[in-house]
Amino acid sequence: MDRVLKDITPRSEDFSQWYVDVVTKADLIDYAPVKGFTVLKPYGYRIWELIQGFMDARFKATGHQNAYFPVLIPESLLKKEADHVEGFAPEVAWVTHGGEEELAERLAVRPTSEAMIGAMYSRWVESYRDLPLLINQWCSVVRWEKATRPFLRAREFLWQEGHTAHRTQAEAEAETAQMLGVYRETIEQELAIPTVAGPKSAEERFAGAVNTLTLEGLMGDGRALQLGTSHFLGQNFAKAFDIGFLDEDGVRRHCWTTSWGTSYRLIGALIMLHGDDRGLRLPPLVAPVQVVIVPIGKGEDRERVTAAAHALQAELSEWRVTVDDRPEYTPGWKYNDWEMRGVPLRVELGPRDLKAGSVVLVRRDTGEKESLGRDALAGPDGAVARTLAEIQQNLYRQAEAFRASNSSVVADCAGVQARSTRGLFWGHWCGDVGCEAQVKQETGATIRCLPSGGEWSPEGAEAEGPCLGCGRPATITAVFARAY
Amino acid sequence: MDRVLKDITPRSEDFSQWYVDVVTKADLIDYAPVKGFTVLKPYGYRIWELIQGFMDARFKATGHQNAYFPVLIPESLLKKEADHVEGFAPEVAWVTHGGEEELAERLAVRPTSEAMIGAMYSRWVESYRDLPLLINQWCSVVRWEKATRPFLRAREFLWQEGHTAHRTQAEAEAETAQMLGVYRETIEQELAIPTVAGPKSAEERFAGAVNTLTLEGLMGDGRALQLGTSHFLGQNFAKAFDIGFLDEDGVRRHCWTTSWGTSYRLIGALIMLHGDDRGLRLPPLVAPVQVVIVPIGKGEDRERVTAAAHALQAELSEWRVTVDDRPEYTPGWKYNDWEMRGVPLRVELGPRDLKAGSVVLVRRDTGEKESLGRDALAGPDGAVARTLAEIQQNLYRQAEAFRASNSSVVADCAGVQARSTRGLFWGHWCGDVGCEAQVKQETGATIRCLPSGGEWSPEGAEAEGPCLGCGRPATITAVFARAY
Repeated sequence: MDRVLKDITPRSEDFSQWYVDVVTKADLIDYAPVKGFTVLKPYGYRIWELIQGFMDARFKATGHQNAYFPVLIPESLLKKEADHVEGFAPEVAWVTHGGEEELAERLAVRPTSEAMIGAMYSRWVESYRDLPLLINQWCSVVRWEKATRPFLRAREFLWQEGHTAHRTQAEAEAETAQMLGVYRETIEQELAIPTVAGPKSAEERFAGAVNTLTLEGLMGDGRALQLGTSHFLGQNFAKAFDIGFLDEDGVRRHCWTTSWGTSYRLIGALIMLHGDDRGLRLPPLVAPVQVVIVPIGKGEDRERVTAAAHALQAELSEWRVTVDDRPEYTPGWKYNDWEMRGVPLRVELGPRDLKAGSVVLVRRDTGEKESLGRDALAGPDGAVARTLAEIQQNLYRQAEAFRASNSSVVADCAGVQARSTRGLFWGHWCGDVGCEAQVKQETGATIRCLPSGGEWSPEGAEAEGPCLGCGRPATITAVFARAY
Repeated sequence: MDRVLKDITPRSEDFSQWYVDVVTKADLIDYAPVKGFTVLKPYGYRIWELIQGFMDARFKATGHQNAYFPVLIPESLLKKEADHVEGFAPEVAWVTHGGEEELAERLAVRPTSEAMIGAMYSRWVESYRDLPLLINQWCSVVRWEKATRPFLRAREFLWQEGHTAHRTQAEAEAETAQMLGVYRETIEQELAIPTVAGPKSAEERFAGAVNTLTLEGLMGDGRALQLGTSHFLGQNFAKAFDIGFLDEDGVRRHCWTTSWGTSYRLIGALIMLHGDDRGLRLPPLVAPVQVVIVPIGKGEDRERVTAAAHALQAELSEWRVTVDDRPEYTPGWKYNDWEMRGVPLRVELGPRDLKAGSVVLVRRDTGEKESLGRDALAGPDGAVARTLAEIQQNLYRQAEAFRASNSSVVADCAGVQARSTRGLFWGHWCGDVGCEAQVKQETGATIRCLPSGGEWSPEGAEAEGPCLGCGRPATITAVFARAY
C-alpha cells in the first residue's frame, strides 16, 4: 500500500477521522479561509450536479417549477412567524452595512426562505384558481453553526427548498407525503441508501411546522443521519404572512402550505454509508467517473496502450469514462487513487491484453477481477452496463444487510445501552416529551422518526410495548438512534 | 385589445416603462420586500435554466468543471489586490454579526469571487502538472447598486463566473479569447442577438484586469448593453494571492489567470432587443413554452377540442408545449397573454378545424397565420420544427437589420449628437483617456469596445480617421454608444 492510502486513517480505527480524510483526499471538499466554510471542489460538485439532475427531473414531473428568491431577508419578515424566528435567530448571519452606509434594518443571510417566500406568495395568490403554487429553489443557505463537519454541518451549505401553497389541508398533506416519496426514490434508487420514513416527534419538528416527515439513514458508524424532510406547515405561515385566496364560494380563506428540503449532506451520507478503508465507493448512477481506464505499459508499449485506451473510451461514450494516462504515476498508484475516489469500475489494459484482445475489469464494490474480451464491454447488454447495474444493486443490498444487522428491538434504555447506542433501535413511546428527554439523557439516542406499520423493521418489532421512558404500555412505535 | 395589452405601455412611447411593464406582466420578475432586490419568477427562471444549459454544455466541452465557493469573503482577502478592492468596496454588503456574536473581521457578501478563488488556487496549484485549472461557478452575487433595474442592475443577480489559472501568458490569453467565443456562440445562436466583440479601453476594464474582452449588443432603444466579458488578469491576482507553481525546469513561477462572466441580464437583452408593443418575443431555443395550443369551443364542443388539444400536445412531445384550457378566459385573451409572454408559435384548434383535420398556426415574430393539416405538424420535417427554426433565424436577421440601420460612421462628436446618441457609432480614438472622457461628456457615449478589423462594421468604416476627442489622426477603431 503506497502513499494514497497511507494518508487515510482506517475506517475501523477512527470513523470520524477517516471521514474527514476521505472528504479531503478524494478532492470533494477543501476548507475555506473563513471559519466554518468549505469549498465544494469539482469532483464533489459533480456528484451534487448528478443528484440535482435526478431530483430536479422528479420535481418537474410532479408539476414544480424552479425560481429564485433574494439571499437577504429583512429581520422584520423573519420575525413574522414566532416559532420560526425562535428556531433560526440564534444561527443567522446579519448584514448591517450596504456599501458605505449603515442599513436602517439589518438583513439576514438566508437561513431558509419560508419568510421571504411567504411574503411573495401573499402577493401572488388571490384566487383559488392561482392554487396550488408549486415552487422549488436551488441555492445555498447560511447558518452560524458552532461545530462544523464537511457536508453535514457547515456555516454554508447547498440545498434545495420547495415551498407550496394549497387550497385545502388534505392537498397540502398529500403534497408533504408526495415530496418525501420523491426524496425516497432518489435516495434509494440512485444513492443506494435504504431509508426509514415517518413523522418526527414534536420536539424534533421544523421550527414553525405542524408536522415534519423525515427520511432517516443508518451510517457506517451506527449513527443515524436525517436525509431529507418534508414539512406540513398547516396555516401557520399562511396566517403569519397573510397568504389567502378568494374561494369558489366567494369566501376568503388562508392557504395551507408546505416546505421540503434536501441538501448536499446526501454526499456525506454516500461517504459514511458506502465508504470503506480504501475510501469512497460511489453508486454508479451518481459517480462523476463511472469507469476509469488505466493503460499499462512502458517505453514503446506506452503509446500503443494509451491509444487503445482512448479508443475504448470512445466506444464507451454512453458512460462517464476517464483514461488515466498521467505519465508521472505508476499503475498501482492510480488504482489506489481511483479506488479512493470511489470509481465503480476499473479497466486495466496492458500490452498482453492488447495482443489477446482482452481487458481486465475490476469492481470497486467487491474487488473482483475478471478478464474478458474487449468486444464484450460496450452496448446495452455488455459487461460495462451489466456490471455497473450490479454494483448499483449490490451497494443497496449491502446497505440493507448492514441496517438489518444493526437494528434491534428494545424494551428499555438498557437495551440501547447494551449496544453502546450504535445502530437503530425500535421501541415504544408513550408520547410524553419528558420520556423522550429521559431516553436521550440516559442513552444519547433521540427519536429519529415514528414509522408507520408499513415501514421495514427488524424481527420482533411489535405494535405495542413498554415506553422506553416510563415503562408504561405505549402504542407509538419510535426509531431511536444517536444521530448526526 | 383587452386588459392584457392595456397594461403595457407602448414601446415607442416610453421604452423604459414598456420594459418594466413587460418584465412584470410577463411574470419574469417581481419586486422583493428588500430595496433593490427582485424575485426571479418561474417563467423567468426557466429562461435562465435554458440559457444555463447551453452555456454549461459549452463550458464542459471546453474542459471546465463547476465548483462552489463560499458566499462570504473576509475583508482582508478582498483587499489583497489593490485595484480590485478599490473597484468593488463601495458596493459591498457586509456581514458583521454571526448568530449572537459580533465578528472579529467583517465578511463581504460575494460581489465576485476572484479573491476567494485566488486564495484557494494558491493552495491547489503546486506543480505545472496541476495546470491549467479550469473552474466555473454558477451562483448569485450582491452589489449595493444605487439605481436598480430588473435584470440589468440589481443588488443581487444570478450569474456564472469562470476562473482559470495557466502556465503561460499565451495560454491564458487564448483562454480569455476562447471563452468570449463560447459566450458569443450562445448569445448569437440561441439568444439570436448579434454582437460586436473587442477589448475594452483601460477606463472600462474590470477592476484588476490587464485586458477585458467584451461582447456588446444593441438594444431596441438604441442603447448598447454589455452582454458578457472575459478578463485576462495577467499575473496581478497570481501575485496578490501567491498562485505559483514549480515549473518543469524546477523554477517556481506565478500563474497567469483569467476570469469571465455572464449574468441573467441576458434575459434583459432578449426583452429589449426582440420585444415589441405586444410584449416579449422569445427565440424558440430559449423559450420556456415553444408552442401554445389554444382549444376553442363552448358547450359540448369544449370537451372535444380540449381532448384533441391534449392529444396534439402528446404528438409534439419533442417540444415544450402547453395547452391553455383555462375555462375562465376567452381565446382572444389567451392569444394576447401568450403573445405578451413571447411564445413563438400558437396553434388554434376549433370545432371546424377538428372536422377538417386542420389547425391554424400563428407565428409570434411576424403575426402570420397559416391553416394546415394537423398531420403536417409533428416530426423533424413537420411544420412545427420548420417554423420554429425559421422564427429563430428571423429574429436574428431582424436584429442584424436593426443594428445595420442604427450603426453609423462618425468623424466627430457632432456626428454622434446628430443622431441623439442613439445607436452604435464607429469612430476613431487616439488612445488618450482625456479624449475618451471628452466624448463621453459631449455626447453621453462611452467606448463600448475596440473591435478588430474582422468584426462587422457599417459601410464606410475606415482603418484610420480623426480622433473623436482631439481630431488628430488616429488608428484605433472604437465603437461608441450610450450604454446601460
